[in-house]
Amino acid sequence: MSKHLTKRSENYSKWYNELVVQADLAENSAVRGCMVIKPYGYAIWEKMQKELDKMFKATGHENAYFPLLVPKHLFEAEEKNAEGFAKECAVVTHYRLKSDKNDKSKLIVDPEAKLEEELVIRPTSEAIIWNTYKNWIQSYRDLPKKINQWANVMRWEMRTRLFLRTSEFLWQEGHTAHATKQEAIEEAELMNNIYAKFAEKYMAMPVIKGTKSESEKFAGAVKTYCIEALMQDGKALQAGTSHFLGQNFAKAFDVKYTSKEGKQEYVWATSWGVSTRLMGALIMSHSDDSGLVLPPKLAPYQVVIVPIYRNDEQFTQISEKAQEIINELEDHHISVKFDDRDTHKPGWKFAEYEMKGVPLRIGIGPKDLENNTVELARRDTLNKSFVKQDGLILEVKQTLKDIQNNLYKKSQNFMRKNTHKVESYDEFKSITNGDGGFIEAYWDGSANTEEQIKKDTKATIRCIIDEKIPEGSKCLFSQKKAVSKVLYAKAY
Amino acid sequence: MSKHLTKRSENYSKWYNELVVQADLAENSAVRGCMVIKPYGYAIWEKMQKELDKMFKATGHENAYFPLLVPKHLFEAEEKNAEGFAKECAVVTHYRLKSDKNDKSKLIVDPEAKLEEELVIRPTSEAIIWNTYKNWIQSYRDLPKKINQWANVMRWEMRTRLFLRTSEFLWQEGHTAHATKQEAIEEAELMNNIYAKFAEKYMAMPVIKGTKSESEKFAGAVKTYCIEALMQDGKALQAGTSHFLGQNFAKAFDVKYTSKEGKQEYVWATSWGVSTRLMGALIMSHSDDSGLVLPPKLAPYQVVIVPIYRNDEQFTQISEKAQEIINELEDHHISVKFDDRDTHKPGWKFAEYEMKGVPLRIGIGPKDLENNTVELARRDTLNKSFVKQDGLILEVKQTLKDIQNNLYKKSQNFMRKNTHKVESYDEFKSITNGDGGFIEAYWDGSANTEEQIKKDTKATIRCIIDEKIPEGSKCLFSQKKAVSKVLYAKAY
Repeated sequence: MSKHLTKRSENYSKWYNELVVQADLAENSAVRGCMVIKPYGYAIWEKMQKELDKMFKATGHENAYFPLLVPKHLFEAEEKNAEGFAKECAVVTHYRLKSDKNDKSKLIVDPEAKLEEELVIRPTSEAIIWNTYKNWIQSYRDLPKKINQWANVMRWEMRTRLFLRTSEFLWQEGHTAHATKQEAIEEAELMNNIYAKFAEKYMAMPVIKGTKSESEKFAGAVKTYCIEALMQDGKALQAGTSHFLGQNFAKAFDVKYTSKEGKQEYVWATSWGVSTRLMGALIMSHSDDSGLVLPPKLAPYQVVIVPIYRNDEQFTQISEKAQEIINELEDHHISVKFDDRDTHKPGWKFAEYEMKGVPLRIGIGPKDLENNTVELARRDTLNKSFVKQDGLILEVKQTLKDIQNNLYKKSQNFMRKNTHKVESYDEFKSITNGDGGFIEAYWDGSANTEEQIKKDTKATIRCIIDEKIPEGSKCLFSQKKAVSKVLYAKAY
Repeated sequence: MSKHLTKRSENYSKWYNELVVQADLAENSAVRGCMVIKPYGYAIWEKMQKELDKMFKATGHENAYFPLLVPKHLFEAEEKNAEGFAKECAVVTHYRLKSDKNDKSKLIVDPEAKLEEELVIRPTSEAIIWNTYKNWIQSYRDLPKKINQWANVMRWEMRTRLFLRTSEFLWQEGHTAHATKQEAIEEAELMNNIYAKFAEKYMAMPVIKGTKSESEKFAGAVKTYCIEALMQDGKALQAGTSHFLGQNFAKAFDVKYTSKEGKQEYVWATSWGVSTRLMGALIMSHSDDSGLVLPPKLAPYQVVIVPIYRNDEQFTQISEKAQEIINELEDHHISVKFDDRDTHKPGWKFAEYEMKGVPLRIGIGPKDLENNTVELARRDTLNKSFVKQDGLILEVKQTLKDIQNNLYKKSQNFMRKNTHKVESYDEFKSITNGDGGFIEAYWDGSANTEEQIKKDTKATIRCIIDEKIPEGSKCLFSQKKAVSKVLYAKAY
C-alpha cells in the first residue's frame, strides 16, 4: 500500500486533500464538515499551541475557560455589532433523547425536553465573555483584563476543507478590556505582531501585516489587523486577525468602569485569534510532491532513525548504536524517533517519513557500523549524505537550523517573486487570471472599486498596508486619487 | 470589600461554594449549569493537565481530537452497552438563526434549517471514536491504538455545583484498542495507577484504589477501576475511573483486526478519564476556614512577595531587594509573583493570598532591609517566622517540600482516622448518620444488599478492594457468606 500524491502542478487542491490524509494529519468524520485531527496532526498543533501560549503569557495574558453554549438573547444584544455573524450556527433546542415507543432500538428527541431559550454553540465568544466581564469590571483597578481561551468553536459552513474551513475548529481567542482607547489599539497591534513573529519564526512562513477594509473586517470591530501569507498556488491565506473593537461590546453589554477621577466610562476592547487553519497554511507553505515538509521547530519529532539490517545480529548492533545517538540527541533537546518495527521494510519507512515531513532521517546499516558513518537525509532538499558518527550531533543540530532557515528563505523568495506591482488594470487581470500572487496597488478607498474588482477577478483586498503613499498616487481601477496602498489577491 | 467565608463546621457546602468564588476559581455563567473557569482556577487546571499529559505520553499515549457533535444513530449502535447514558444531553436540531420578521431585533430559529439527523454534544466520545477506529484498525500491525483527548463534554445535569457537577466540564478521555484481553486489562489497571500516583504525588491527596460494583460501574464497561478520595466532611469523591470495556464497543461498531495468524478478531478496549471535578477534590482535601490551601506542585505561583512601605524611597529599596530574590527563586524553578500594586494595602493582600492558597508569602518591610531578614508565612500551618535573607532560597525550597509532604500526611491521617472497620450494621448506621467517612466491610456480592444499604443510609459501595478475604467472612448486612471487602461511604 505505497502512498502516492497527485502532483501539485496537476491539481493543487487535490494534492492538498490527499496530503492531509496520507500524512496522517486529519480526516473527515461522520459529522458533516467536522474533522478528526489525527495524532500526528494534533502533535503539530500542540507544538503551535505551546509556543503561542508562551508568547501570550510573556505579554501578560492569562488563560480562562468560558461556556461552550451561548444563550440566544446574548446574540441579540450583540447583533447590531456583529450582524450576520450569529446566523449560521449550531442551535441546541432540546436536552434529552429517549427511546422510540414503536421501535425501542431507535432514539428520538424528547418533545417534552424543549429548552425555554435556545442555546447556540459558540461561533466566537465575544457575547458570553463580555456578558461576564460586566460583573468583573467595576473600577480602573480591575483593568486591564487580558484573557485568552483555547477552545473549540463552530460555524455552520456549507463547503468545508480539512483545516482550511471546517464547521468545528480549534482556536485560541483573546479578549481584552482596557481603560483607554490608546491602550486597546496598542494591544491589538501587539497581538498582530506576535502572530507575525510566530508565523515567521516557528512556521518559517513570511507574512504581510496590515489592516482589513470595511467590507473584509470583523463586523463587530472598529479596525481589524491581520497577517496574510501567500500559498504555493498563488492564493493568499489569512493566518491571524486581531481586532480593535472600540467600545462596541462594552456598550452592547453595558460594561463601564469608574476611572481614577471617579467618572463612569465605557471600557475599550480587543479580540484576536488564530486557529487550526494555521495547519493548512503550514502545509501549503512548504510541502512538495513527495508529501509534507515541516520546519524543525514544529515537527513532532525532528529526526527519525531507520535501521537497515538483514539478520537479528545486525539489528542488535544497529540498535545499540542508534540508542547511543538517541541519548546524545536528547541531551541536546533534539526530538527523535527510532522506528525499529519489524513489520515494515526500510524503503517503506523512508517513503512514510518523507510523506510525514520529518526534517531529518538517519539511516544506519551494517556498512555504516564498519565505516563509523550514518546516512543523513534532509527532507527539505531531499539531499542525502554519509556523515561520520563522531561529529553527528553537531551536524544534526546545524542541519536542523539550516532547514528552518532554508524553508523561511524559500518561502520569502517565493513571496517576493510573486508580489507584483502593476501599472494597469489589464496587467492586474492577467495576473489574477494567470499564476496569481499578491498584487500591490493604490486604492481610492471606495467600496465600489473593491466590489468591482472582486466581481471581475475574484481578487479581494487582503490588507491595507500601513505606509505613506506618494502625493498624486492614483487608484489602479478608478484612476481617482488614491488613499492607500493595498494588497490584492484571490484568497482561501 | 474584605472577603469572609462561612466556617466549615457551620455549613461545609456553603463554605465550599463561597470559597470557589472568593478564591477566584470559578463562577456560574449565564448558561444554566455551565461554569466560567476564572484565570486563577484555570491556571491550576493547566498545571494538572501538564503533569497528567506528561504521564500519559511517558506511557506511550498520543493526543488527538475528535468531533464535538455525535450523530444520533451512533448512540443507537452503542445503546445496548450504554443504556441511559446518551439520554440527558444537549441536542442540536437546527443550523441557523434568523431575524424575526415581526421584530427585527429578535433572533429566531430558522425552521427551514432543520437537520436531517439530530446531533448530540458529546457526553463522552466512545461512540464517535469507535466509529472512527473502524477505519483505522485492520491488522494486528495497527494495534495497539493508545489515544487521549483533552476536551469539553456535556451532560444535562439537573443539580449542579461548581467543579463537582456541571453540565459542561473539561476532561481528558483516553480510548485504547488492543489485540488481546490481557493487554487491555493491563492498560485499564495502568491508567488507574497513574491516576492514583497523580492524586498522591501532585494533589497531595491519598486515594483508595478498587473496582466498581455492577450498579456503580460505567454501563458500557466490563469492569470499572477507580480511585476514591475522602473529603473533609466525611464524604467520598470518585476522582478518576478507568474502564476495561471488553469487546463491547468493538462489537457495536464492528471493529475487527486480522491477527498474525490471519484470523479475524474483535478488538479489546479501554477508556479512562479525569475531569475538572479534580478541582473540587483538591479544594475539599486541604482548604480551611481562611480559604484555599494549595499543594506547591499545583500552585499557579508558589511564592508571593508583598512589599510593606510608607514612602516611595522605601518602595524603591524594597523592590530592588524583591527583584534579587525573584531572580534567585526563578533560577531554582520556583514560581513567584511580586505584588507591587499601590492600589491595595499589605493587609488586604495578605488576606487575598490566604484566600487564594498561595503556599508561601514573603513580606519585606523597612525593618527587614535593616536586619537583612524577610517575613516568611506558610499557608498550610499559618505559621510566620523571620528568616535571614542569606539562606532564604534554600529555606523556601525546603519549606515548599515540607508543605507538599505535610498536606499529604495530614490528608492521610484524616483518611486513616475516618476509615472505620465496623462489627455491626447498627455501628455502620451510626457512622453514616454521624461524621461519615469510609467504612470497610465484607459484602455478600448481591445487588440487593447494596440497594438496601443505600436506601437505609445513602451510603454506596465506593469500590471493591482487590484483597483476599479470610475464610468464613460474613456480609455485614445479610450475614451471608462474603465474597469481597468493600468500601462504603456517602459520596459526592
